[in-house]
Order: sequence, then structure tokens, then C-alpha cells
Amino acid sequence: MAVQIEITRELVTRIREAINENNEEQALDLIKELHAADIAELYDELNIEESRYLYLLLDGELASDVIAELDEDDQEKFLKALSGEVIAQKFIDHMDSDDAADILGDLSEEKKQEVLLHIDDVELAGDIVDLLAYDEDSAGGLMAKEMIIVNENWTILTCLKELGRQADDVDEVYYMYVVDDGNILKGIVSLKQMLLSHNSAIVKSVLEDDIISVRTDTPSEEVAQIMEKYDLVAVPVVDSTGRLAGRITIDDIVDVIIEEAEKDYQMASGLTEDVESGDRVLRITRARLPWLIIGLAGGIFGALVLGRFESDLRIYPEMAFFIPLIAAMGGNVGIQSSAIIVQGLANNTIRNERTLQKLGKEFLVGLLNGVLLASLIFVYNWFASDSFALTITVSIALVTVVLFAALFGTLIPLVLNRFKIDPALATGPFITTLNDIIGLFLYMIIGRVLYTLFAV
Amino acid sequence: MAVQIEITRELVTRIREAINENNEEQALDLIKELHAADIAELYDELNIEESRYLYLLLDGELASDVIAELDEDDQEKFLKALSGEVIAQKFIDHMDSDDAADILGDLSEEKKQEVLLHIDDVELAGDIVDLLAYDEDSAGGLMAKEMIIVNENWTILTCLKELGRQADDVDEVYYMYVVDDGNILKGIVSLKQMLLSHNSAIVKSVLEDDIISVRTDTPSEEVAQIMEKYDLVAVPVVDSTGRLAGRITIDDIVDVIIEEAEKDYQMASGLTEDVESGDRVLRITRARLPWLIIGLAGGIFGALVLGRFESDLRIYPEMAFFIPLIAAMGGNVGIQSSAIIVQGLANNTIRNERTLQKLGKEFLVGLLNGVLLASLIFVYNWFASDSFALTITVSIALVTVVLFAALFGTLIPLVLNRFKIDPALATGPFITTLNDIIGLFLYMIIGRVLYTLFAV
Repeated sequence: MAVQIEITRELVTRIREAINENNEEQALDLIKELHAADIAELYDELNIEESRYLYLLLDGELASDVIAELDEDDQEKFLKALSGEVIAQKFIDHMDSDDAADILGDLSEEKKQEVLLHIDDVELAGDIVDLLAYDEDSAGGLMAKEMIIVNENWTILTCLKELGRQADDVDEVYYMYVVDDGNILKGIVSLKQMLLSHNSAIVKSVLEDDIISVRTDTPSEEVAQIMEKYDLVAVPVVDSTGRLAGRITIDDIVDVIIEEAEKDYQMASGLTEDVESGDRVLRITRARLPWLIIGLAGGIFGALVLGRFESDLRIYPEMAFFIPLIAAMGGNVGIQSSAIIVQGLANNTIRNERTLQKLGKEFLVGLLNGVLLASLIFVYNWFASDSFALTITVSIALVTVVLFAALFGTLIPLVLNRFKIDPALATGPFITTLNDIIGLFLYMIIGRVLYTLFAV
Repeated sequence: MAVQIEITRELVTRIREAINENNEEQALDLIKELHAADIAELYDELNIEESRYLYLLLDGELASDVIAELDEDDQEKFLKALSGEVIAQKFIDHMDSDDAADILGDLSEEKKQEVLLHIDDVELAGDIVDLLAYDEDSAGGLMAKEMIIVNENWTILTCLKELGRQADDVDEVYYMYVVDDGNILKGIVSLKQMLLSHNSAIVKSVLEDDIISVRTDTPSEEVAQIMEKYDLVAVPVVDSTGRLAGRITIDDIVDVIIEEAEKDYQMASGLTEDVESGDRVLRITRARLPWLIIGLAGGIFGALVLGRFESDLRIYPEMAFFIPLIAAMGGNVGIQSSAIIVQGLANNTIRNERTLQKLGKEFLVGLLNGVLLASLIFVYNWFASDSFALTITVSIALVTVVLFAALFGTLIPLVLNRFKIDPALATGPFITTLNDIIGLFLYMIIGRVLYTLFAV
């Protein structure tokens, strides 16, 4: 029984040697035990010519599996130097319609037409054209056309024959999809059900009609939520009139879920593009620069705000000591509040509570945290500082800033969401920076007032 | 064809009314169209007595599905008031072994024994005891015992009979698992393959032996990576001698993937517990306090660092203006660098590059970003500030702090990972706070040196 084989440095070296010696047999022999996903990982280890040499050696089925496993960017780079004819016949012809459409969607219009022209399988070419019409981020853009479709009036025996006929095209068969004469989805029959039914039974009498489906225009994220919530491995996609259009399998949805989660994480950590540690220096730099520039702009605004208080700072330089503390706490509380909302919106647990209710609750959480933290810093400053004005200023400013950040952090993602903007932006640079600045301003203003009251 | 039904305020109100009027029939009628996952969502809308009343009305199969859909915490709360006998007979008896083991694993030792004693299905009770022995975060802890197992020497016809016999226990059948007489896993047969094979064929001759399996002690995260990479809907689990122990299905793995992603996101946004916006004020406060206290401690250290430079700040209060900028940029760059590494480690794309290579690259990225940002702020200060000493200090400090944060942010998650500590900690409070403080110190030191050189 073959298990996953570790791609060792040594294996990579031997493969590169075989490629550079133009030893086809040796190269193929070295990778013959590998799964397509592992062969695709070799891409990172080889240069582009080497991987082109290697992947073109593979037979069509495997070659197309390998290409389908590559990152979008890598696919583009890999295919760029190949003619439309080679792309069509070596790769696309052996792919499922959804993978093929994904790849063609990234090609130039000209190249796309060239490839479509050279696809031998006319039905596949038609399916691809159909799929290309859908938004990439909708169920239509995710679905594949390959599925076993049976008519509700057929017998199980007819279905079995149909399965035999269609099975070659469909890798993973979980269900047969049952339609009426007008191609309207009526239900599903699991293979288990088929195996357990009599050959002469009519599909209509054994089908499961209480099924969940999505529409071609359902957003990918919603498809992911539905499949996750109802633990589905495949979901049928219907058009607005209920006709069966395709099916989405869980492996494609796992990718959506991971991308979605990574996007939020990247947002929270200030990366504006999907970068990997293996990417080039320039790309990583570019992905990081936008947040940093916003941060810089925020810093400049912060400097301007503090500049308005230069005289205070000159007389009471100790006020400056707590600037980092106030700014950090405002930022932290704001991100925390936003993250709870962002996650709640993402996994759909925020439903019936009203915005005001949420703000009320967040006010309590903020007040509790704020008072606790302010007490701690009060005690510290009581002992550590000679200035009662400073002690009271830092504590009162901290409560105020924490409260403000909690409310602001809660409100922003809700507002963004209302306006159909990705709420995760709230944990991103712009809002946190804004939070920092407002926090600083509050601190200095409170300081000015309290120092006039308490300064000795 | 039933589709998902939206849980409206009105529906909830009507259900509550029915419950409070003790109208069983009405209550059941209102939820009869709902999927188990939707009925489980009602839990958030009802109080604990109401949901206990409602869920105990359901028939065993549905009741156990609903309970299995609840959050771990909610399951615990829900079951607390019920006797071991009710738990066993109403819920556990109808569950798959993995869900049952998850629930029993959270009960007190005493309650657990009481429940086990009352399970009618002896085989299930045995399976649960087996499963409870595995680490929760390993393949053994994730797997279920329910699967169709056939002997390699059987005919397809025998398998079909076996399927008919076992099918009731197994909800989702994707494959039959083939073992030899010693229960060693030899391969799988898909239902499609079975449907397409002759009844008299021997399993051994049609099985797929080139399959991927995991071991009972494989960590959950690794199982998730494997299933995701190879696009598996189910993976068999074997013990150290290759004997078939269970199988893991993709729906359980989707949960692991989501939890893992949420954990990283929570870490990056400073939440130390898995909280939801619906949780109670005290719980949310508690989940947020640890980071805030670390942030507070960091702020105090920051104040101490700045306190060492009180005389500088008194003479050059404008230096204080840029404290938020320096602290924020150090923090931002550090989190970015860490996040790239954390994500690379999580999705296994960091492999062959050496640590030194990574640091070298990060040095370049940091230098590029740092010089760019420093130039921008230099130009700004050139026009906005009278003090050349300030202008040069801020710019040089910015390059230094960005470079330091980039290297520190890269190194920390790699080191944590080496010591088998969750690298996501690096994007958490402790490291970012440390980063802030070091950044401040660098700024003030550079300022002191450059002001003595350039101050007029």
C-alpha cells in the first residue's frame, strides 16, 4: 500500500539531475510513486523550464491533475510559454470542467479562444464556456458540470447502465441527481440507496427529495456556510427556475473556507495580498507596504495631534511616558471588539441580536475591562509617580479610551457589513490607526483638563 | 423539495409560546420542516429549560443529531441536568461513535460511567470506550468506528449483503474498507467500483490499494493537511501495526480547519479564548483581559524606558510626537513578518528554505520597506519640522525599528515552532508588546545620539 512519500532534498536533486541530463525515463521513474499533489509541490523546487520539461512528460490524466493542483499564479506562469494547442490537448482535455474553467478564466482572451478551439471533447468545451459565464465567487463559478444525472421515471437498472456510461467522466460519485423531463432537480439517490434497491424500482419511488441545493448566484462564502452547517460532501446547483446546473464538491469548498480564513488573518496582521514566505522579496514588500503607509500616515496624524499639546508636554514630559500605553490599549481593545464581530458575521452566529443590544453589551465589557485596567495602572502610578495629576489622568484616559475603542470597534464592522463591505477591514490598518489617533487625542485633552485641576 | 428554512423572530416566538403553553404537538409541528442543524441553532434563542423541553420531545435519531450539532459548552450545559440514563437512551444510543465519544469525553468521570452503563447498544459502548482512550487532538480522537469493512477474499455479492447489513449504522458510505484476515488494511473499494463490477468478482481483484491512510496518533492538524492536500472525503485510520481502527470523514475535518483558522485569527486579534459575540459579558471580558494586561505591563515598561529619557523629552518635546508612529510601525512590521511565517507553517509551504535564508530575505524586505517609509517621513519632516535633528532621528530610527521588527518577527515563530510551541503566539500580545518596547528604546537612543550631533 503506497503512502505519502516525503519529498526529500535528495529526491529533488536526483529529479533535477535526470531532467538536466535529458533522461526522461529516469525522471519519470523517480516520480512514479508520487501523488499528483506531491508532483505539483515539486514546482517550488524546480525552475520553470525544469518543471515544464517534467510535467510535459506525464500522461494527460496525471499532467492535468498536477496542473490543477498548482497555485493560480503558478498555473499562469507555467502555461504562458505553451501554445493553445498543447494546453488544450495535454491538460484541459483531461480535466473536470470546473478546474478547466478556472484555468481558462485566467488566460488572455486570445489564448482562451485558441485553447477552446483545440479541445477535442466538444461537450467539455461547451461546459467550460457555460461555466466561464458565472462570477468566480459564486456557486456557478465553483461548480462542475460532471455529475451523474438520471430521470425520475427511470428504473434503478437504467440508472446503473447510465452510471456505467457516465462513470468515467466523474471521479467521485456520491449521489445521482434526479431530474424530471424539464431538467428540474427533484432529488438525489445515494449509491448506497441504489445498491439496496431492487433493479426494477422506479427512481421516483426511492429518491430523497428533502435535499439542500444552492443557486448559481449564491455567493461562495454562503455555499461554504451551508455545506459546513449541514455537513454536505456535495451540493447540487440549480438556476433560478430550478433546473439542475451543476454540483459543488466539498474539496473545492475546503479551499474557499481556507482562503476566507486566511484572508481575515492576513487582514488582521496587515497583509494586503495573499503572500507566502516563498514569494519574491518585491512581492512580499508590496503586499506589506499599503498597511505600513497607512500606519505611517496615522503616525503623522498622531504627531500632529501631539504637536497641538507641545506646551503641555514641555511642562509635563512625564505625560509622554504613557503615550505608548494609551495608544496600544486603544488599538488592542478595538481589534478585539472588531474581531468578535467579524468572526460572528463570518460564521453566521450573529443573527437576532440588535445593534443597540450589541453596543450595550460591548459598553459593559469595555467598562469592566477599562475600570479593571485603570485600577491596576492607578495603583502602579500611585507608588511609582510623584504626580497625582498624572496618576489620575492616565487612569481616567484609559477607561475613556478603552470604552471608546470597544464601541468603535464593535460598530465599524457592523456598519461595513450593512454597506456590504468586508467587515474584516475593521481589524485592518485604517480603523486601528484611526482608533490610535482618537485615543491619543482623548488622552491629551483629559490630561490638559486634569492637570489644570490637580497639578501642584 | 424542502430547502433551508430561515429561522425568523416570528418562528422563534411561536415555538416559545408553544413550549410555554406546554403544547407538545404545536411545538413539534413548528419545527418538523427544520434540519437538525437549524433546530440546534434554536438553542441560542431559547432558555435552557425551553430547549431541554423541546429537544426531549424529538425522536431519538433527530434528538441526537441536534445535540451533536451544539457547541461543546452548550452540550455540557444542556446535559448537566439530565440523568445518565436519559442521556444514554435519548441521545448517545443513536449517535455515531465519534460524536458520542466527544460528548462523553466532556462529562465527569462519574456521569460518564453512568451513561456507559445505560447504553443499550453494547457494540457502541465498546467503541466509545475504545475511542475515549485516544488523544482528542489526534486521528484516533477524530475517527468514528462506523464504516463498512469487507474481507479481501469476499466476492462483490457478499460485500453487497454486508453493505445491506451494516448500512443502517453508517450514514455516509463513500468507500468500503478492505482488510485481510488479520484486520490489516489492504485498500478500498468505492461504491462506484462495486456497482460496475461483477457480483462474482473477488474484492482483492478490484480494490484500489494505492491509498492514503493516517495513524491513530497522527495529530489532527496533520490529518487536516493531508485530507486537504489530497482532496479526500474520508481517510482510513490504522494503528501502528497497520490494522484498521476507524475512519475520519471530511465534515469533522472541516471543523478542525475552521477551529485552527479561528484560533490563529483570535490570537492575532488578542482573544485568548474561543468567544462568540453571543457569550456573556463576563466570559467575553475574561477572554480579553489577558492580552490587555500584558499590553498594560508592556505600556508600563514603555513608560519606564521613556522615563530614562525624561531630560531629552523635556528639552526636545517634539521627539514625543513621533513615539506613536515608531511604536506602531515596529508592531505592524513585526506582526506582518510573523503572520507570513505562521501561515506558512500552518499550510506547510515552509519546507526546504533554511532559517538563515529566511532571515536574509526578511532583512531585504525590511530594508526595502524601512528605507521607503523612512524616505517618506523624511520628506514630510523636512517640510513640516524646523528641527533637522528630529528629521534625521525619526528616519534613521524608523529604518532601524522596521529592520529589527522584521527579523524579530520572523525569528520568533520559527523558534517557537522548533520548540513545539504554537508559532501563532508570535502574533499575539507578548511578542508584539516586546517589539513595541524595544522599538521605543531604539528610537530614544538614536535620538539622543543624533541630537547631540545635529541639534542647533
